[in-house]
Amino acid sequence: MNGMKQLSSGAWVRPAVASDLPRIAELLEADALGPAGGLPGPSADGYARAFEEICEEPSNELWVATRADGDVIGTLQLVFFTTLSWNAARRAQLAGVRVAESERGQGTGSDFVRWAVERARSKGCRLVQLSSDKRRTAAHRFYARLGFVPSHEGLRLVLQ
Amino acid sequence: MNGMKQLSSGAWVRPAVASDLPRIAELLEADALGPAGGLPGPSADGYARAFEEICEEPSNELWVATRADGDVIGTLQLVFFTTLSWNAARRAQLAGVRVAESERGQGTGSDFVRWAVERARSKGCRLVQLSSDKRRTAAHRFYARLGFVPSHEGLRLVLQ
Repeated sequence: MNGMKQLSSGAWVRPAVASDLPRIAELLEADALGPAGGLPGPSADGYARAFEEICEEPSNELWVATRADGDVIGTLQLVFFTTLSWNAARRAQLAGVRVAESERGQGTGSDFVRWAVERARSKGCRLVQLSSDKRRTAAHRFYARLGFVPSHEGLRLVLQ
Repeated sequence: MNGMKQLSSGAWVRPAVASDLPRIAELLEADALGPAGGLPGPSADGYARAFEEICEEPSNELWVATRADGDVIGTLQLVFFTTLSWNAARRAQLAGVRVAESERGQGTGSDFVRWAVERARSKGCRLVQLSSDKRRTAAHRFYARLGFVPSHEGLRLVLQ
């Protein structure tokens, strides 16, 4: 597939396609913190609608990592935007990073995030940022090993 | 101007235009933490290039608050994007929120952010998020009063 790239851990990275959605939903819903905000998870239609919105915006990219046999073992999103603050730089927001439980500890996650950082760099970004629930202490150690610094508060307001 | 709206504090809100850039730069550069990352602030050309990138993406909005006489007294950005995580919701990232020192304590800042939250709601968002330097303790009290919860770590990686 166009743009497919192999990571040093042996996994492959490619843009997500609609038929990946059930597997991506599985990865997101297997998450220890559960569907966000205590809400029930989205329906298949909800994921499909969101995927369409993602595809409509060139600045919003959904990626999957796969094994050589094609099985999807990870997912992440990259959203690119420019602000006037932070030196008028282009930046990338990383979101929805998940790697299958079965693949943990094999370097897939760190290779996948390092790949995402290089993707951001190639798109002209000078900053990669993400917000991660404060209860995800293992994730924060993971990101610290990759050079991420917890310099900011991640503030959220849920709209009812 | 199309889309101009008056806040209860008496200020007006409108989309930023290119001629606002010097004043927006002033507001950003008057910030207590200085230009981000210890880097020198961008040149006028740097701001102009970033403004063009912002204008090219309909999901990225730069707004100003003005006094009745037209003086720009505040600025903020809203970036809209959809993720599959967090219930496949559309969300808004708030960035570069600044209000002139002379206008503080008069409700302009909170009115402006409340306006931004309603703008996000009208665009279908179910979450407004921002990351704010941990040293900005006064800002965090300000956002807490508006209902924002510091539930997340804001992690950053600066690309050299």
